[in-house]
Amino acid sequence: MKKDTRKIKEDYIAEEPQLCNLDRSKTYKGLVGIYVDESLITLIDGEKGKLYYRGYPLMDLVNNSSFEEVAYLLIYGNLPTVSELEIFKNELIKERTIPDSIVTILKSYPRNTTRIELLRTSVSALSLYDADDYVYTEEANIRKGIRIIAKIPTILAFAHRIQENLPLVEPSEDLSHAGNYYYMMTGKKPSKDFERAFDKILICHADHSINSSTFSCRVTVSTLSDIYSGITSAIGTLRGPLHGGANERVVRLMLEEIKKKENVIPWVKNKLENKEKVMGFGHRVYKTWDPRAVILRALSKEFWEKEESGDIDKIPDQEHEEHRGDIDNIFEMTEMLTDYIIKTKNIYPNVDLYSAGLLHVLGIPTPLFTPLFAASRSAGWVAHALEQLKDNKLIRPRLRYIGELDKKFVKIEER
Amino acid sequence: MKKDTRKIKEDYIAEEPQLCNLDRSKTYKGLVGIYVDESLITLIDGEKGKLYYRGYPLMDLVNNSSFEEVAYLLIYGNLPTVSELEIFKNELIKERTIPDSIVTILKSYPRNTTRIELLRTSVSALSLYDADDYVYTEEANIRKGIRIIAKIPTILAFAHRIQENLPLVEPSEDLSHAGNYYYMMTGKKPSKDFERAFDKILICHADHSINSSTFSCRVTVSTLSDIYSGITSAIGTLRGPLHGGANERVVRLMLEEIKKKENVIPWVKNKLENKEKVMGFGHRVYKTWDPRAVILRALSKEFWEKEESGDIDKIPDQEHEEHRGDIDNIFEMTEMLTDYIIKTKNIYPNVDLYSAGLLHVLGIPTPLFTPLFAASRSAGWVAHALEQLKDNKLIRPRLRYIGELDKKFVKIEER
Repeated sequence: MKKDTRKIKEDYIAEEPQLCNLDRSKTYKGLVGIYVDESLITLIDGEKGKLYYRGYPLMDLVNNSSFEEVAYLLIYGNLPTVSELEIFKNELIKERTIPDSIVTILKSYPRNTTRIELLRTSVSALSLYDADDYVYTEEANIRKGIRIIAKIPTILAFAHRIQENLPLVEPSEDLSHAGNYYYMMTGKKPSKDFERAFDKILICHADHSINSSTFSCRVTVSTLSDIYSGITSAIGTLRGPLHGGANERVVRLMLEEIKKKENVIPWVKNKLENKEKVMGFGHRVYKTWDPRAVILRALSKEFWEKEESGDIDKIPDQEHEEHRGDIDNIFEMTEMLTDYIIKTKNIYPNVDLYSAGLLHVLGIPTPLFTPLFAASRSAGWVAHALEQLKDNKLIRPRLRYIGELDKKFVKIEER
Repeated sequence: MKKDTRKIKEDYIAEEPQLCNLDRSKTYKGLVGIYVDESLITLIDGEKGKLYYRGYPLMDLVNNSSFEEVAYLLIYGNLPTVSELEIFKNELIKERTIPDSIVTILKSYPRNTTRIELLRTSVSALSLYDADDYVYTEEANIRKGIRIIAKIPTILAFAHRIQENLPLVEPSEDLSHAGNYYYMMTGKKPSKDFERAFDKILICHADHSINSSTFSCRVTVSTLSDIYSGITSAIGTLRGPLHGGANERVVRLMLEEIKKKENVIPWVKNKLENKEKVMGFGHRVYKTWDPRAVILRALSKEFWEKEESGDIDKIPDQEHEEHRGDIDNIFEMTEMLTDYIIKTKNIYPNVDLYSAGLLHVLGIPTPLFTPLFAASRSAGWVAHALEQLKDNKLIRPRLRYIGELDKKFVKIEER
């Protein structure tokens, strides 16, 4: 057994600090509005519909940088110089491969399973192969973080192609993070246009402050557990349809339920009457347009217009090809949905609504929509794990017991 | 791809409810004292040092029931009748085996790794083999929960014995949960005495309201993710030395650092002077004796006295045998530590302190101490996941951004 040499300095005294202004009689279900910590990573301005990574407006980053640069920014807190970025990119490229035995294991799993389960399991397994597994310095944690960010696209592409009985596409050393990821999934090197759009999608999803997946990552590492455990928790949390599962559902409902423009309004009316959640709409923080939705909406418009006019590379995604003849322009249907829900409910679309259509028109296979979120967000998760560990306090809330007490134990024969 | 048929009814309106008595300017770091939900599962009375599962005092359950009965109680909310318990036990027995391919995978992993990483990875993989993986009814969730509780001991015992190059011990259908677990780990069927003591340890760890691992489980399933994801998060969270890693550390420091009675006081003085955490002491909720520590202390006393007088089955644990000649009675050293820390700091021992010595004298291999916590707590995790899903609200707090805003993006060449 490797030996864990961490010196634990966390205060161990039973604690009940001065909880000023905290009403002990209240239960904060869902932790809505509760600030769990201070952070230097991301600000969501839900009133104005703005998003900042490390103080930079998302729009500036989308227009001027790359996923690699944004990942660097999130992790280190500042934009890289030319040489810093070069080194960082090379580290990511070097770490794109995954252990052969993880590939063997991926091949041994049953078919007909979601990619996100395979990702959760494989990221958990990666720790077993990491030479730094029992080193807990910040430098080691950054190395582990870079490995995780670099390897997730490979795991996902391999897992998907194994499940679909397609030949594996080994990572290329000549492509950008976005370009290589696209290439490994689809087997096709992307055009500059596609690469750039896909890169922007990754930038838009790279962090979003403390949603549930990021929170579970921070809870996990707050016990001084390792980064692999933190990211594994985050992936499992992302799996839920109230969080990361939404964009996949959006495109499936377009393909399988709505299909035609004339169905949009009856479909949405029926949903709202049944008080069912319409995927792709509403957010606990944004009260207006989600800025990521704005960015991806503009990109969607551009690519769906190209698609309409035939001015686009052949779309490789099979699922679309199968439905192609039967469905109307997804972007136009999305716009109809948006208009109706804003008007009747004053609820705005979120990032999932437009990422779904955009990923679809770029030819990304639908089963890889939810996991793509994980691939991109891994940059944010790593940044949050590092921040949590920098000034750690065990995250341990309370549950309010509301049941009976001192029940009398009755012998089993007498029950 | 299997199709997910959950109807999502969660309210999707951007929410900011009336947060009465909540000071929005305050940050609740570590969520100390914050109640995140109501619960009918467990009450910790930190003032009086009492613990209740479903309203029954822990002591009554330890004295009168078994781990299986307690697991039933936690999951279903009431004590089983004779026939209900019979059915439940048989389900657990039936589910003790794990898929052959998971055994093959366990054999393929590198040696020299912690059992808890292997458990985290294997529980994540189990979902791929579960026929109910895409069924989200409460009944299906209970079935999955029972499978998880039944299979964790098998995974742990197999993982450990593979790592140690020992022959695997297949689960027995004739032994209790505790008895079989002990048997698979050590290769030896336990005496009635040992089985009973081990069963009591499992009962003591079966739930503890919302510590960090249970909380991460609830955060994960609050996105409507699956139970396997929830338990995987919990295991990764438990791994941290501020949570589940403590009992292993306690026995290692006894074996490797303190060794002799005369070293106890100098060692602890030095620790306290350096403000280092002394493992096995202090708890965020208990302000007096942890009732589990009281129970395990009494058991420890009994078994260490037997060990002293030679009136005990041969201890199979190698690690102890190696150190045996060199170290004093662990129970006596533990008592010295306890006296000193209570007197000088008014800090009480927690469950880890006594579980460490007790597991050791029962012959449980040290690398399986932390994972044992997971094996037992899986009953509580399942109960908490079910409770969270019964009246779910997405757990999504806030982070307070304290950095600069609207930083100007400078071109990379000009940085």
